Amino acid sequence: MFNFKVVSRSTATRARTGLLQTAHGEVKTPVFMPVGTRASVKSLTPEELLDCGAQIILGNTYHLYLRPGCEVIRSFNGLHGFMHWDGPILTDSGGFQIFSLAKLRKLSEEGALFQSHIDGSQHMLTPEKSVEVQLCLGSDIIMCLDECIKYPTEWDAANKALQLTTQWAKRCKAALGKEKNALFGIVQGGMFKDLRETSAHALMDIGFNGYAVGGLSVGEPKDIMLEIADFTLPILDDTKPKYIMGVGTPEDLVELVALGGDMFDCVIPTRNARNGQMFTKFGAINICNSRFKYDTEPIDSECTCYTCQNYSRAYLRHLYMAKELLAYRLNTIHNIHYYTRLMENVRTAISQDRFEAFKKDFIQNRRP
Amino acid sequence: MFNFKVVSRSTATRARTGLLQTAHGEVKTPVFMPVGTRASVKSLTPEELLDCGAQIILGNTYHLYLRPGCEVIRSFNGLHGFMHWDGPILTDSGGFQIFSLAKLRKLSEEGALFQSHIDGSQHMLTPEKSVEVQLCLGSDIIMCLDECIKYPTEWDAANKALQLTTQWAKRCKAALGKEKNALFGIVQGGMFKDLRETSAHALMDIGFNGYAVGGLSVGEPKDIMLEIADFTLPILDDTKPKYIMGVGTPEDLVELVALGGDMFDCVIPTRNARNGQMFTKFGAINICNSRFKYDTEPIDSECTCYTCQNYSRAYLRHLYMAKELLAYRLNTIHNIHYYTRLMENVRTAISQDRFEAFKKDFIQNRRP
Repeated sequence: MFNFKVVSRSTATRARTGLLQTAHGEVKTPVFMPVGTRASVKSLTPEELLDCGAQIILGNTYHLYLRPGCEVIRSFNGLHGFMHWDGPILTDSGGFQIFSLAKLRKLSEEGALFQSHIDGSQHMLTPEKSVEVQLCLGSDIIMCLDECIKYPTEWDAANKALQLTTQWAKRCKAALGKEKNALFGIVQGGMFKDLRETSAHALMDIGFNGYAVGGLSVGEPKDIMLEIADFTLPILDDTKPKYIMGVGTPEDLVELVALGGDMFDCVIPTRNARNGQMFTKFGAINICNSRFKYDTEPIDSECTCYTCQNYSRAYLRHLYMAKELLAYRLNTIHNIHYYTRLMENVRTAISQDRFEAFKKDFIQNRRP
Repeated sequence: MFNFKVVSRSTATRARTGLLQTAHGEVKTPVFMPVGTRASVKSLTPEELLDCGAQIILGNTYHLYLRPGCEVIRSFNGLHGFMHWDGPILTDSGGFQIFSLAKLRKLSEEGALFQSHIDGSQHMLTPEKSVEVQLCLGSDIIMCLDECIKYPTEWDAANKALQLTTQWAKRCKAALGKEKNALFGIVQGGMFKDLRETSAHALMDIGFNGYAVGGLSVGEPKDIMLEIADFTLPILDDTKPKYIMGVGTPEDLVELVALGGDMFDCVIPTRNARNGQMFTKFGAINICNSRFKYDTEPIDSECTCYTCQNYSRAYLRHLYMAKELLAYRLNTIHNIHYYTRLMENVRTAISQDRFEAFKKDFIQNRRP
């Protein structure tokens, strides 16, 4: 099952709150989805994710298809049972990873022939196969296989990739058949507005449960990313959720919500946590900084996360310097909590129609 | 404060149950103490340690003295506040690590001059300094600085080391002064019974709150380890807790309890967890074994730990193969729980005076 409704709107921006309904529960939007690439949001248990305020997590088709493989996850009736997470799961299609991680051997209309980054074994990912794997994972929200392009890419090549993406999207919808999982189309078209428009309309003609803007945050300047999102989001069917893939910093999320984004995923909070970077309302701090050596205060004295409630900057710095495993976990808890709490504040501000002021305050609070 | 009383005794063996009282709570013996070398039992939070049944943990003076240093921990009034663990803590003296990890520059009657394994900086650890550091850590049970010897060591060298250890023990007691923390002496003497006897009596003449048998599990054959423990334990003051340092496997613990051991610490459950070795009543299994690939059962279907209650062997194998951080943690939870649960069963068996039968069953259940 899948349903989406808009709950409230900001009058001065395109920001809106909404409610996604899935077979594994509801999701309030705008939402940030922690990334659980290999059936685990790195270092955390599902209980901790819930404590951090996570509503829905992301799994990666490419990684899980290669390891442990569909047959293993099928024994558990999908990813939920396998990884002990009962909430909604969105899975990407594998497209982005094939173009970024694997050695792509041959791209054809049929699909993408690639070599595993783990053992070099050869595999063919077609739109049908991607949907089949995501169904096996028991994903609540399945993404269409798309061709991702790097930045910069010329118009002709970007156009060719988007045409293939459109053809694949049609085949993904056919492959889904009567299954009740949601299926989202992915708008491509590089940094060309005319191509983004073509892509968006072609996908809406096919008809999906939601629409994603792909191909952003691939190396382009931030103003171009925001410009393309600003151009593309209002074209998309306003009754459907709009998902900006793979973006971004806290500032990016607030900006993109203002432009109409409902869903977000990014490795920044988890990866940066493992690199010692912790988010606060005044911007990010690096926990290895020697000024924290004797600091008995938490990362953020107003933060209600487990880490801030129980540990000091000095202790977190010590764990990080000593490369203790607990460091990665405590840092990740704080950063995921920061992101989900930020989105909660965003939703409250929208519902009270003071999001524009919230956004202004938020940006001003960030130290350069 | 510190107190110890024997609660019950096994008639057929020297096993006994007891109760340790410290300023941070009571400890039922025989007890296994998880090792939290650098102010963290690797990958676990204090809450998880409690869930696993841990009653008391161990901290390492050598590591904490070098990093983060006493001044940092003093800002938190000791290790308890620094690492958010409210239960009892035993700290070793630093002796073992200086002889195993650091580059020892010069050993003299005064103390041990060594180079840090972290940054090569030069330090002098005297008996007085060791006690001072452990007091700063707020340790509930302080260990005397001792000279550790490798296996094999000749009688003359072993004798010399034990004489130094005795001198240092006297100075440790003087350095403790009127502080209320418990202080334990460490019996040395290598694998020579006459030296062990000399060491034990010399320490009892000084008088400590408890006695440890050091210098075991340093490379000697298992039967020699057990023979020396069997010889040494009954010499020690029976009204005081007896601590076998750095040992051992589950089988070792059961054997040593039968010989009169009350307290144990070892990195085996935590280190082996990180290497994928998990303990069960039938012996250890290695989670990376391909036979677990599709195994939907927990590590041990009777185990009540968080890991066994929520995760399958197939999932744990997947996490381990993918080097996911959660693997180390879930494995560690199981192994610590296994050790604390084993000791709980040991205590129950002793209190019901059926420990000899328990021990026989336990050993027979282990698959070769």
